Amino acid sequence: MTLAQLGADVIRIDPIGGNIDISRWPLAPGGTSLYWASLNKAKRSVALALNTPQGQELATALICAPGAGGGNLLTNLPSGGWMSYQKLSARRSDLIMMRLTGTPSGGTAIDYTVNCASGFPLSTGTGEAPVNHVLPAWDVTAALYLSTGFLAAERARKATGQGQEVTLALSDVMLATVSNLGYVADVQINNAVRPPLGNSLYGAFGRDFATADGRRIMLTAISNRQWRAIGKATGLTERIAMIGPMMQVDLDDEGGRFEARHAIAALLEPWFARRTLAEITATFEGSGILWGPYQDFGQLVRDDPQCSPANPIFADISQPGVGKLMLNTQPLGFSETGRVPPAGAPSLGEHTESVLTEILGLPSAEYARLHDAGVVAGPQSH
Amino acid sequence: MTLAQLGADVIRIDPIGGNIDISRWPLAPGGTSLYWASLNKAKRSVALALNTPQGQELATALICAPGAGGGNLLTNLPSGGWMSYQKLSARRSDLIMMRLTGTPSGGTAIDYTVNCASGFPLSTGTGEAPVNHVLPAWDVTAALYLSTGFLAAERARKATGQGQEVTLALSDVMLATVSNLGYVADVQINNAVRPPLGNSLYGAFGRDFATADGRRIMLTAISNRQWRAIGKATGLTERIAMIGPMMQVDLDDEGGRFEARHAIAALLEPWFARRTLAEITATFEGSGILWGPYQDFGQLVRDDPQCSPANPIFADISQPGVGKLMLNTQPLGFSETGRVPPAGAPSLGEHTESVLTEILGLPSAEYARLHDAGVVAGPQSH
Repeated sequence: MTLAQLGADVIRIDPIGGNIDISRWPLAPGGTSLYWASLNKAKRSVALALNTPQGQELATALICAPGAGGGNLLTNLPSGGWMSYQKLSARRSDLIMMRLTGTPSGGTAIDYTVNCASGFPLSTGTGEAPVNHVLPAWDVTAALYLSTGFLAAERARKATGQGQEVTLALSDVMLATVSNLGYVADVQINNAVRPPLGNSLYGAFGRDFATADGRRIMLTAISNRQWRAIGKATGLTERIAMIGPMMQVDLDDEGGRFEARHAIAALLEPWFARRTLAEITATFEGSGILWGPYQDFGQLVRDDPQCSPANPIFADISQPGVGKLMLNTQPLGFSETGRVPPAGAPSLGEHTESVLTEILGLPSAEYARLHDAGVVAGPQSH
Repeated sequence: MTLAQLGADVIRIDPIGGNIDISRWPLAPGGTSLYWASLNKAKRSVALALNTPQGQELATALICAPGAGGGNLLTNLPSGGWMSYQKLSARRSDLIMMRLTGTPSGGTAIDYTVNCASGFPLSTGTGEAPVNHVLPAWDVTAALYLSTGFLAAERARKATGQGQEVTLALSDVMLATVSNLGYVADVQINNAVRPPLGNSLYGAFGRDFATADGRRIMLTAISNRQWRAIGKATGLTERIAMIGPMMQVDLDDEGGRFEARHAIAALLEPWFARRTLAEITATFEGSGILWGPYQDFGQLVRDDPQCSPANPIFADISQPGVGKLMLNTQPLGFSETGRVPPAGAPSLGEHTESVLTEILGLPSAEYARLHDAGVVAGPQSH
């Protein structure tokens, strides 16, 4: 989807009736999947009887279509049979095939089963039990590794004419990320397993605080400038300065502020508890403090001006089976090539006829014959 | 770092003494930052007095160096002054400048202050209080958008000769992701704010279970095949089948299994509570069940065979100031161009002399003069 949102013509090929995600929750009142609509934006959709030799041949012809538009496939299906790299690259030698698997050996795994092994659930929350984060972070990360990897492989192909198979295991995405963030090194070098710290930052000062009106805010200080801004805005500079000698730490050091975090919080908690979110917002305005209010998905959508069509990554779009809906494009802005505006998702099979006609040169009568034979399907309600 | 791990020559330019992340926790016993070492792998490091006109001129010359190696800059610093796109592109018109900001208007934000606004903390855990996930998912996602965006901009430059400024706001990374996952649509269309579900999946069956030996496992079923495998392996098929009529749901449907999740869990809980992790592992082997044990960062590093040099994304590397350490490369595998092996991080300023000599053709005597004048610095212990 990211590549489609960057301007590529991305064609999703599904079996007739849809794949396993076609009716995934959440659903619109009419039963159309909002999940599917949100994750297939800006693509074209083709529905073929992939369990028949004819459907497989049409898919192969599309994947291996001559010219710059063809020769690329991204899949998370098993690589055997007609969809193997071997079979497809015999048809088009410069094929780039991106294949996402659960494990490096091709085993099955999903975000949840990779996440439980990552160490994060046992480091999230307060430690009574593992806490799964709700954000499917490994799926999101894998998708962006795939878009990076495709562009890298296409760059290499432009230089050498050579295609290739690019593989990515969801478990390796997790392992690389855990290692990139220093958690592996901390165990190896210090024998230290990061404990759950609730909502506190590790290695710097940051925590959530409750307000007088039942809201919560996240307050952080990374730089010394941000740190001093907290004392200045709250009028607590002198009392905060007492914490350094009291806790025997250097409060001009990120690590020192982390070590003294409970004492710092003890001073700040009553300050926040006596003020409403609106009062805090007014006081912190222009102060250079790094903070923000917690909001739920409803508050985000209804109250946050950034989550609206005023933000150029969003636009109101009429989505088949759903109605008018605010959808987004990818978040990168390009000063010269511009941002591809937000686009909606297709309905399943919406482009079957136009794609087969345009790319494979299929005559109308032949499309009608394949349609009646159940090999291809046009737009279906879902 | 991802681009360096894909084979690019990535040069990080720091002020002498290092930037704010140079001593970020966790630290090795000697004080070297394991965080810095983990996040700067495969790069070269140059240290310049960036607060002096001479240091700024050297940095500008490096960024705008002629040839295919120059003309690219990634920064999260304010875009004013000598480092503005305007100033730098006047020196090299095909410059690609990637700029990461907190908000679209250039405001400050970090992973934590973006995350509290995302809706996820109030949807994670069991609902008594917001739960910050520990994984800095927005930073990870932003980094991969940047690598995708750079390759897209470089692809456009190859076609047209035109460079550009590419901007990315961390807040937009969050907003695009929340919207991609259907949370925005669910509020807009259904007025539904996803409630915290503990460790349960939304819209399908999945949950954690405690074992007889004090461990926990994550069990999920997305496809019907995976769902039926649970009944078969546990011997509970017939009793599970009673749940459909009892709860009046279709258990052959993902959503039906989600609606009946408490009844399903009530049946499965005692089964897991009577068995050790080893017994469960033996029973589930080859069953097609989608599951995994929870492990902390220590168990991951010590016990998981995938988190070891047996996995080609990892290798033991001697890291300056730290010693031997297992570090990783990026997780994509390329059948033709191969995987760039894992590489360590530089020490700060390790490549100042070689880079200035090689890229700018600086004579040794001139380097020595700049060094003595404090404009450049070689390797520093940190």
